[in-house]
Amino acid sequence: MATLFTKIAKGEIPSYKVAEDENFFAFLDIAPMSEGHTLVIPKNTENDYLFDLDDETYVGLTVFAKRVAKAIKAAIPCQRVGMAVLGMEVPHTHIHLVPLNKESDMKFDKEKLKLSEDRMAEIARQIAEKFE
Amino acid sequence: MATLFTKIAKGEIPSYKVAEDENFFAFLDIAPMSEGHTLVIPKNTENDYLFDLDDETYVGLTVFAKRVAKAIKAAIPCQRVGMAVLGMEVPHTHIHLVPLNKESDMKFDKEKLKLSEDRMAEIARQIAEKFE
Repeated sequence: MATLFTKIAKGEIPSYKVAEDENFFAFLDIAPMSEGHTLVIPKNTENDYLFDLDDETYVGLTVFAKRVAKAIKAAIPCQRVGMAVLGMEVPHTHIHLVPLNKESDMKFDKEKLKLSEDRMAEIARQIAEKFE
Repeated sequence: MATLFTKIAKGEIPSYKVAEDENFFAFLDIAPMSEGHTLVIPKNTENDYLFDLDDETYVGLTVFAKRVAKAIKAAIPCQRVGMAVLGMEVPHTHIHLVPLNKESDMKFDKEKLKLSEDRMAEIARQIAEKFE
């Protein structure tokens, strides 16, 4: 059965998309730690553990994430973009990219932001515009 | 001036080394979130922001980190190895690899483990043995 994230990458479930190519997909986390918090996933595997990905998919995913991180940094006021992979949540490998101004902005158990649909759409559009 | 991590990679400051090649170095975090918490760094650049690394160094670092993560998983009882890059601490790019059994094992503001030198040396040896 397709994972939630596969359905999102296929457009069967709506998301705030920020970037996509043939193999990878990036969209806003709907429970963001900070504005611009983005998830990056492979489209063609549901393997749920980053370090079990074959090297080609693994490298492709990390290089795609770097491009997305640069777009986030260009669009969202922040000191830098942090990266994290825990993999204890949705069973489909995903990289968190989180705009950081202080270390505690990356905190998985903190109360997440609640942003309006309009604000989410605006953030996604701003990041997508900077994606190269 | 050389960063703390450059001095560690050069052996000028001692560390619990777990893996090394020509370009990258991995050693135990001395304030671990969990047993086996490891830092992976590039040896030949002190660039302090992961996403500013040139693509060759960036890909090399992430591929080296994957090999180290597999060694950690083989040596340390855990569900999986999480990865994080914040970059708000030591000004030299470093990837955190953290053995996880639950999401809250990756928490930067929690009280860190205090392990004896013997225990740290034993953990480093166990991971190093599994490194391929």
